[in-house]
Amino acid sequence: MFYNILDCSITRLLDFPFLPLCKKFRTFAPMSKFSVNILGCGSATPSNRHLPSAQVVDFRDTLYMVDCGECAQLQMRRMRLRFSHLRHIFISHLHGDHFLGLPGLLSTLSLHECSGQVHVYMFAEGIELMRRMMKMLVHEPTIEIVYHPVPPEGGTVFESDALTVEAFPLYHRVRCAGYIFREKPRPRPLRADMLEFFDVPVRERAAIKAGADFVTPDGRVIENARLTTDPGPSLSYAYCSDTAFDPRVAAAVEGVTTIYHEATYTDEFEALAAPRGHSTARQAGKIAAAAGARKLILGHFSKKYHDESGHLREASEEFPNTVVANEGMKIDIE
Amino acid sequence: MFYNILDCSITRLLDFPFLPLCKKFRTFAPMSKFSVNILGCGSATPSNRHLPSAQVVDFRDTLYMVDCGECAQLQMRRMRLRFSHLRHIFISHLHGDHFLGLPGLLSTLSLHECSGQVHVYMFAEGIELMRRMMKMLVHEPTIEIVYHPVPPEGGTVFESDALTVEAFPLYHRVRCAGYIFREKPRPRPLRADMLEFFDVPVRERAAIKAGADFVTPDGRVIENARLTTDPGPSLSYAYCSDTAFDPRVAAAVEGVTTIYHEATYTDEFEALAAPRGHSTARQAGKIAAAAGARKLILGHFSKKYHDESGHLREASEEFPNTVVANEGMKIDIE
Repeated sequence: MFYNILDCSITRLLDFPFLPLCKKFRTFAPMSKFSVNILGCGSATPSNRHLPSAQVVDFRDTLYMVDCGECAQLQMRRMRLRFSHLRHIFISHLHGDHFLGLPGLLSTLSLHECSGQVHVYMFAEGIELMRRMMKMLVHEPTIEIVYHPVPPEGGTVFESDALTVEAFPLYHRVRCAGYIFREKPRPRPLRADMLEFFDVPVRERAAIKAGADFVTPDGRVIENARLTTDPGPSLSYAYCSDTAFDPRVAAAVEGVTTIYHEATYTDEFEALAAPRGHSTARQAGKIAAAAGARKLILGHFSKKYHDESGHLREASEEFPNTVVANEGMKIDIE
Repeated sequence: MFYNILDCSITRLLDFPFLPLCKKFRTFAPMSKFSVNILGCGSATPSNRHLPSAQVVDFRDTLYMVDCGECAQLQMRRMRLRFSHLRHIFISHLHGDHFLGLPGLLSTLSLHECSGQVHVYMFAEGIELMRRMMKMLVHEPTIEIVYHPVPPEGGTVFESDALTVEAFPLYHRVRCAGYIFREKPRPRPLRADMLEFFDVPVRERAAIKAGADFVTPDGRVIENARLTTDPGPSLSYAYCSDTAFDPRVAAAVEGVTTIYHEATYTDEFEALAAPRGHSTARQAGKIAAAAGARKLILGHFSKKYHDESGHLREASEEFPNTVVANEGMKIDIE
């Protein structure tokens, strides 16, 4: 399911991550809010149809930006994504359409909107330039910008209690990293009816959510499976842009549930794709199919196109559950 | 007169600078096309109402950009301003909201849109950083970027047959330059009826437009004033942003016909203006009145405001012929 930002106010209420503790709800585990907001999904330069690459992953109300093309901060305002919730920014590579919004965004965070640390993950060759630029732009910053060099061979670059972010190599004209956001195994949702039935004290509930059995005061062991429900498989999201079609990408994102893959061209211009380090929509579909994904999001469209119906048709022939990104979309990670 | 870009297609046709040489038109001098296109007129950071400072002066179909905040290149596309006509970019100062669109714009010019030279005028301390950034962004440029350090004390930074651009000091928190575009005295428009009456050969016309009399084959001298009309006074345009209210600004722009002056605040927040190196709308009006301008354009509005009716009212009390800038506007230089 996806919906435009214009519709999102209602959906945001429904998505509210902490449901009230009342008997109306059979389980009361926190809902897994995991979605991606498309700020820009065009290639090369801003056009009247698309903005350069930028998106914001919303994982349980903390925002993680992936790429930051020009106008990304403006798009955040338009989509009502709160600057104060943005703490981590991952840059895929040092082409202008993927990071030229970063100095402006960091200036805005640093001038007005935030305090504390903001973490930027990018290749080492861009970090020194960013430091110099930020020094010129902001004299009394309110935030501390912490730069993390991304290892060219990839690896885990961020980890929290509930999420990891891994970098992996893509195959573009310059060194380029994809990123995989992996939700860690979720706590087991508690069954309110069974907790009441066995009169489970509140102090025991954290252990039960983590998988423990419950022992009644008279020594009877109640198995965890009777007190909780299956939390379902953990979700994951991979960002693959920019890259030529390469089976190593499919191997890297194998088992990821939702994949964003660049689809600069349609079949008509397939000959342009590989030499320019890009892919076609059909190739994106093949990657999603080979990786066993549940959903594919196409993006990074060339300016050649007046609409992306051809991209959707061709990718869907390889992988049916495909959606076409557009600015302002918020797409649930499945 | 001003009009929104939505209306501009018709007006552009009417503005076409070379009128056909037919008797229908009493004079056939090239029209003086001189206007400013507002790409962004907000302060500090992009908001949902305004973009950062950027504008394009259109002088007889050559485009001159003044400041280049983030999203400037996108705004050029939206306003259908042709990248290939942009040859000169003047940066007032090195705050992010006045130049962070420059790397992206130069990348676009350099990757796709143009060839030849593009001239950038900015303070020396920004040039080295721009060179490094452009080296990282563009490996095989199609344009040559020529950087011109702006002298802190000001002076003429550009001159062509028909136009000069002068820098002059503004009074902001960091070193800041305003720019004055001055049309050189125009050729005298020829009177078609009189040329026909005296049977003036085509080869004589350039000299007559420059002010020469015409001597008939039988030796009779026809004074220039009978063959031409008054071209009117030369027009000029001054860009004054960012600056505190200072009488030296009025002295610098004395006699300029149209002034764009920053008006970050209304009277209500006058106390904030000077310490932050900014002005109120009323102060902008006072500058325009003291300089003897014909038209004042207000811009660089703080995010505090939901509309600029207060700015307009207060400035108009000091200087009646005031207009409020907005993104997408094209404003004739009077």
